[in-house]
Amino acid sequence: MSEKIPGATARTFLAHIERGLFGRLRRDAHAEWAAYTQHEFVRCLALGTLPAEDFRAFLTQDYLYLIQYARAYALAVCKADTLDDMRALARTMGHVLDEMQLHVGYCAEWGLTESAMQGAPESLELLAYSRFLTDKGLAGDVLDLLVALAACAVGYGEVGARLMADPATVKEGNPYLRWMEEYASDDYAFSAIAAMETLEHTWAVRGGEARYPLLLKDFRTAARLEAAFWRAGQQRNFLG
Amino acid sequence: MSEKIPGATARTFLAHIERGLFGRLRRDAHAEWAAYTQHEFVRCLALGTLPAEDFRAFLTQDYLYLIQYARAYALAVCKADTLDDMRALARTMGHVLDEMQLHVGYCAEWGLTESAMQGAPESLELLAYSRFLTDKGLAGDVLDLLVALAACAVGYGEVGARLMADPATVKEGNPYLRWMEEYASDDYAFSAIAAMETLEHTWAVRGGEARYPLLLKDFRTAARLEAAFWRAGQQRNFLG
Amino acid sequence: MSEKIPGATARTFLAHIERGLFGRLRRDAHAEWAAYTQHEFVRCLALGTLPAEDFRAFLTQDYLYLIQYARAYALAVCKADTLDDMRALARTMGHVLDEMQLHVGYCAEWGLTESAMQGAPESLELLAYSRFLTDKGLAGDVLDLLVALAACAVGYGEVGARLMADPATVKEGNPYLRWMEEYASDDYAFSAIAAMETLEHTWAVRGGEARYPLLLKDFRTAARLEAAFWRAGQQRNFLG
Amino acid sequence: MSEKIPGATARTFLAHIERGLFGRLRRDAHAEWAAYTQHEFVRCLALGTLPAEDFRAFLTQDYLYLIQYARAYALAVCKADTLDDMRALARTMGHVLDEMQLHVGYCAEWGLTESAMQGAPESLELLAYSRFLTDKGLAGDVLDLLVALAACAVGYGEVGARLMADPATVKEGNPYLRWMEEYASDDYAFSAIAAMETLEHTWAVRGGEARYPLLLKDFRTAARLEAAFWRAGQQRNFLG
Repeated sequence: MSEKIPGATARTFLAHIERGLFGRLRRDAHAEWAAYTQHEFVRCLALGTLPAEDFRAFLTQDYLYLIQYARAYALAVCKADTLDDMRALARTMGHVLDEMQLHVGYCAEWGLTESAMQGAPESLELLAYSRFLTDKGLAGDVLDLLVALAACAVGYGEVGARLMADPATVKEGNPYLRWMEEYASDDYAFSAIAAMETLEHTWAVRGGEARYPLLLKDFRTAARLEAAFWRAGQQRNFLG
Repeated sequence: MSEKIPGATARTFLAHIERGLFGRLRRDAHAEWAAYTQHEFVRCLALGTLPAEDFRAFLTQDYLYLIQYARAYALAVCKADTLDDMRALARTMGHVLDEMQLHVGYCAEWGLTESAMQGAPESLELLAYSRFLTDKGLAGDVLDLLVALAACAVGYGEVGARLMADPATVKEGNPYLRWMEEYASDDYAFSAIAAMETLEHTWAVRGGEARYPLLLKDFRTAARLEAAFWRAGQQRNFLG
Repeated sequence: MSEKIPGATARTFLAHIERGLFGRLRRDAHAEWAAYTQHEFVRCLALGTLPAEDFRAFLTQDYLYLIQYARAYALAVCKADTLDDMRALARTMGHVLDEMQLHVGYCAEWGLTESAMQGAPESLELLAYSRFLTDKGLAGDVLDLLVALAACAVGYGEVGARLMADPATVKEGNPYLRWMEEYASDDYAFSAIAAMETLEHTWAVRGGEARYPLLLKDFRTAARLEAAFWRAGQQRNFLG
Repeated sequence: MSEKIPGATARTFLAHIERGLFGRLRRDAHAEWAAYTQHEFVRCLALGTLPAEDFRAFLTQDYLYLIQYARAYALAVCKADTLDDMRALARTMGHVLDEMQLHVGYCAEWGLTESAMQGAPESLELLAYSRFLTDKGLAGDVLDLLVALAACAVGYGEVGARLMADPATVKEGNPYLRWMEEYASDDYAFSAIAAMETLEHTWAVRGGEARYPLLLKDFRTAARLEAAFWRAGQQRNFLG
């Protein structure tokens, strides 16, 4: 687990994601990874041009997603091989459950109440992505699950860090600035680095080159599902 | 388990689906159920006007779906409370695995090889629906899982039976006739009736009115996912 | 979730366990429950006559058990129907993981290091009990799992509360006094009451009289496994 | 999957178990493996000196075990990476469910009815072993599960083949001869060889030297649990 060193920044985070198993997966899935982290939705956030209604649909689905994401981490705790890993993964799960309360405060500023979000139907994109994650935990071992989870845990940090470092990002009067700042924060970076560290040493005891092709396939699918998720909740005919 | 009584027909099947827990779920989810079983895709099958390309996309995704559907039944075997239920569910799982070989033969007539279908990416609709099913088996008990599975097991039988009984259905020269006949067959009806019977007696030992609202919610979601699935594989940007 | 009210005591706890679903299970499984909570091992703890070697074997297996118990609670988080339940169960899981560190301190006083305990083989009793719990989470729903978990969560509180309230319990010079005090503490009582409350409202949304026979059967099995567990780690031939 | 070649014998089976991943695990766990496959219970079967009462207790627990063993194979079907593996594992699961009916016939000759066996309580040894298997499927991937399952699948074949090949085995008038013959049969050998083949190619795509230590640990535990299982059902105080 990384210590919280004041001074760790988005920049060191962007170096970190090039390394180890995560770096290798990210390079080998570069097309899917770019389609996710440089999605049009992300560019519109950076320019502040995203329609508020699209953002609200996203926030609602993201709230519902976090419940499922916490479930997937709970499953990872159940599947971990060591007490240390159980504790690291339980910490992440706890963060997700705690951060949902911050999320709720943020959503309130956009006019979304928690009860409205809880009552919203799950979108096709949410169902596909979140149940892909929990099913990975059912079908595979903790390594399979952590690889699938890494696309979300690390990707949002990369989006935040990149947008905040990019001079083209509009900061003045951008209604999405706080959202970008949150994912570019040291807190988020530390948590994403912790995820990569748990992944790395799980790979050390459960990995092997033979497993890499299946892991890469899952990582690609997770990245594709992330790309689709930016537009989650916009297929109104599915939501009924 | 129903005996195979020669003379059981699509008509008796359509009476059967009105009864018991399944009948109640179907009535209470009538909007979602109609949107699924009377989908435009279904109407185009009946008239023979569906573009062949759409049908091929559907067949490919359906092949990939059946693998996941068999996994969900395997999980149901693991979760069943009695040896008799394990055997009934194992039989269904075996049928799915066997029928995939028939399916492969049928797909070949549409120019789809098994290896092409196996190599095709899973669509958003397939991921959403199939992983919703297996996740239901992870999160809930065998009753939760069987309710979710019933939408597929029974719905295709209803579609087949209704289309074949409908005088408006075009039979002469309809390239989709064989597909409709398969789901209107006595074999399929028996299997769907068996699914309703296992569901019914599982409800008898694991049910209770308190559970009905959650079960209905899941059944509605499954029906919505079925409706979405008719167009599975057509979001080409997701498939990459 | 119960507030921590100073003044809640073992006595109010002993009234609490008579109520609701837990009270009913406990009454209907009275033979197994008495064999567990009034086991000879417990009586020897109360009199301070238990051989230290037996206690050490128990402590080692109890340490290993808590890892599995935390896994079972992690699975319950994954299976919970609401965010509130996820949080309540995650809190219990967190307590177990945290309390293991207190446990390690206590064990050190008995000459047991954490690494020695981690390296000890799991006993037959531990394997039977803990994997019965996690398998219950695989086979059933969150209600099945919580019923099985209640035997441990509540039973140790009852043992602690009863022993500390019993005038026959030897306090002066009893090497097991601190152990008894821990399970008779307000903290433990609050946590056990929280377990009964989560169980009770899960029963309200997932229960039904039809389910009671299977739930009672599992509760009986859990109580029998608890009774066997007092002697865990003493079948030396199994441990190899 | 091995073809059924008439002429395959116990002898070729005994050569087979020396090879591949299974052979390596068996050698590295030789102490536990010998304690299981050359257990006193086995020697008493060979000499025909085992008390009938002990055998009946074993048969009852073995019946209950097979239900759980089939559940574990159902879970393996759900976890398999390919359709071919799903089919191979489904076949094994089907054999277990079918062979239980032969088993019931055999047990009837020993005065045990199916309903009596179904009503018998699960022993500590059965709970420990069978739930260790299903939990392995929950915690790990299909490779973890297949390694744990191999101890049973292959071990009984080895016991049967060795006893029938051993001139010291009493055949004349030995009431356990049919039991030994069943596990020395070509059918059983083929099925055990199939289990080793599925294990071997799963190791090829999911393995790696890094995983071997954990796999060996589980295999050792499974062998210890098998050794304990011969005496399953004899701790009458546990069974209540």
